[in-house]
Amino acid sequence: MVARRTARDLRSENRFEVLHALFELGPSTRQELARHTGLSPATVATLVTEFLSEGVLRIATVENNTGGRPQERLTVDPGRGRIVGVDVAETYVDATVYDLALGALGQGEVALDEHENDPSYVADGIVRAIESAVAAGGAEHEHIIGVSVSMPGHVHPEAGVSVFAPNWDWRDVHIEKMLAHLLVPVYVDNPLKAVVLSEMWFGAGRVVDTMAVVNLGTGVGAGIAIDGALVRGTTNNAGEWGHTLLELDGRPCRCGRRGCVEAYLGAPGLRTTLAGIDPEHRTLRQPRQRDFVEAVAEGLAEGDPALKDLAHRTAHYLAAALGDLVNMLNVPTVTLTGWASEALAAHLLPAVRDELPHHVMPGSLPGLTVEPSRVPGNAVALGMAAFTLQQFLNRLGLGSPAGTGPWADRGRGLGPAGLGQQPGQGL
Amino acid sequence: MVARRTARDLRSENRFEVLHALFELGPSTRQELARHTGLSPATVATLVTEFLSEGVLRIATVENNTGGRPQERLTVDPGRGRIVGVDVAETYVDATVYDLALGALGQGEVALDEHENDPSYVADGIVRAIESAVAAGGAEHEHIIGVSVSMPGHVHPEAGVSVFAPNWDWRDVHIEKMLAHLLVPVYVDNPLKAVVLSEMWFGAGRVVDTMAVVNLGTGVGAGIAIDGALVRGTTNNAGEWGHTLLELDGRPCRCGRRGCVEAYLGAPGLRTTLAGIDPEHRTLRQPRQRDFVEAVAEGLAEGDPALKDLAHRTAHYLAAALGDLVNMLNVPTVTLTGWASEALAAHLLPAVRDELPHHVMPGSLPGLTVEPSRVPGNAVALGMAAFTLQQFLNRLGLGSPAGTGPWADRGRGLGPAGLGQQPGQGL
Repeated sequence: MVARRTARDLRSENRFEVLHALFELGPSTRQELARHTGLSPATVATLVTEFLSEGVLRIATVENNTGGRPQERLTVDPGRGRIVGVDVAETYVDATVYDLALGALGQGEVALDEHENDPSYVADGIVRAIESAVAAGGAEHEHIIGVSVSMPGHVHPEAGVSVFAPNWDWRDVHIEKMLAHLLVPVYVDNPLKAVVLSEMWFGAGRVVDTMAVVNLGTGVGAGIAIDGALVRGTTNNAGEWGHTLLELDGRPCRCGRRGCVEAYLGAPGLRTTLAGIDPEHRTLRQPRQRDFVEAVAEGLAEGDPALKDLAHRTAHYLAAALGDLVNMLNVPTVTLTGWASEALAAHLLPAVRDELPHHVMPGSLPGLTVEPSRVPGNAVALGMAAFTLQQFLNRLGLGSPAGTGPWADRGRGLGPAGLGQQPGQGL
Repeated sequence: MVARRTARDLRSENRFEVLHALFELGPSTRQELARHTGLSPATVATLVTEFLSEGVLRIATVENNTGGRPQERLTVDPGRGRIVGVDVAETYVDATVYDLALGALGQGEVALDEHENDPSYVADGIVRAIESAVAAGGAEHEHIIGVSVSMPGHVHPEAGVSVFAPNWDWRDVHIEKMLAHLLVPVYVDNPLKAVVLSEMWFGAGRVVDTMAVVNLGTGVGAGIAIDGALVRGTTNNAGEWGHTLLELDGRPCRCGRRGCVEAYLGAPGLRTTLAGIDPEHRTLRQPRQRDFVEAVAEGLAEGDPALKDLAHRTAHYLAAALGDLVNMLNVPTVTLTGWASEALAAHLLPAVRDELPHHVMPGSLPGLTVEPSRVPGNAVALGMAAFTLQQFLNRLGLGSPAGTGPWADRGRGLGPAGLGQQPGQGL
């Protein structure tokens, strides 16, 4: 019943804790790392020695304290490699190149025609976005230790496959194979998993370990972390909050069901609501979802009455749907991410916060926070890059090529080609 | 971010794994336990020695194999103590006395007037149900190692408090204190947590470690386990699936919100649906919820057309609401428990299973099972007893009185009085 925990898992977790602490604290001494992680000084010293020999950490500064030993401050060595995180959405591909400390170096974006559903068209867009990001970031191909691609819909990470993408009506598209010519390890996952990881490493998850990250765009969904663990579900399909009911037998949803949250809170859902208020409204003439949502945000700033009605109704839907999420999971923290959140959160959140107590069970309300995510840049691309970094550290730390956790088999799948990107022995 | 795992946690988990294996396998040899748990033979041998010295296990049989050492088969010593599990619901208190192998020895039930909300009235009902169960089970008071009480609504286990019970409009009722005169450790929790634990130990959780247990009665809710861990939420309030939306701004729910699942699938919700079909229907004259639901089940067996319409609509509601649960969490297994499930599951499940594929995301559908729970007896009382057993083993195994996990502070709270129930040193 209980997941087996082995000394190997423990060690791997301790490595991440030290690394997380460095992301949080910045350059730190071994003593500071021990204090922050709660690990013993001896354990921290051993892990730091490993990391230094692997080239993951380097010594940032040496302080000479009077009367004591010199104090070394350690930092993640950003020059150790490059990672590309890719966010593939219905209407665009956004690729970002990161250093090993997950600092963004360069970004590339390619627009996708949402009516074009040929996998090779999308794969070509992915490659062009990566090339553009790599050029913008001044990265050398041989320094890239991995590419992680987030695909909408149901993804099978172990197989590198987009199992089902409702927007393209795709089934079983082998993304990893389609990108094999890049000659770097490719990891494929779902944006709801990526936004949780980025939130845990760089956002609200630095403070809490149970939370939901609500992603609003053309589609909507929620990434979930419980007690510090990402909730994947049995087939990596958890978090489909967008396909829970707001209204039984309500609006048709593109998933085939009626009344789903997404049919009200996805960008096309906003269009439907607005068309019910004013079918001739000028913003409805914007053919692209992002342009439409941005036009809505601009019109709201100008006080457009139809759009104020749209915001009022949308806040009611969002408060109700967030209430469901909180009642089900009793999370203390919800963050909003995604391009539609960026455009609209400021217009919606005050009314959502006012209404939320009418939806949330009293015992789950005290201390509940609903905030825009503070993760910098594209949270999907960043979270995907964090997955590649996790795998990379697992490969390094466990002798290669086996890893631990949900990505263990992936580590094996990457094989020597992935490790071959790294010159030298013992890295 | 990641929950700290220590050698002490590991050891405690290993103890439960050995015990679970004995519940599953029946009397077993050390070799069989090692094979089943995946623990090393040396670890199993050490744990068995501890358990034997604590009196938790005993040697059931000794087999003399030709040419080998005698093979001892071990079993949980049922005589080691007695545990009382108590299920307090809106309309009744059901108490069951268990031996240490969680075999039921005796049961006692007291009816509660659902319009009476004085805490001392309910506490008196609890005590009378316990006394009746203890008498029926032939238990001696001094052998009782603990009483666990499930209370509806929001419960704070560490404080032993019923924080909020919507049915009684209670706030902060200190159940543990009200039962202090029993002079045994009292543990208080919520039925949604209890049904998951009983399902993990004795039901579907013996095969899967991620699942939801849907509890249907006057109120409705879902217990959730993910990767073998009970999902409590940040204030022990997770699983309020009954207070997620079926219909925005729909039927009033007793929680104060409108359109909640409970307003359609709780026993009063069934009444409302039936009153919409035939306001004069004879079953509506049953004043008590359980009698009403049982009358519905009987009428369905007789082919009553209004009740068939009720079952048809209720199956539609249940399929939709289960679809939400599965889409959110991607659980492979849902079991139905509670007295309303027992009465109605056979009438509802065929239609629910037919409709479910229209609600569940394609990636979460393959292999999904929805079944009545096969946990024997009262699953809430059994799960509560399992909590007491867990705490008892933690106290024994960790030198007393500190435990691990969510109940660590409780272990301390129980103090010497709790341990004092057990004679002798080293127990």
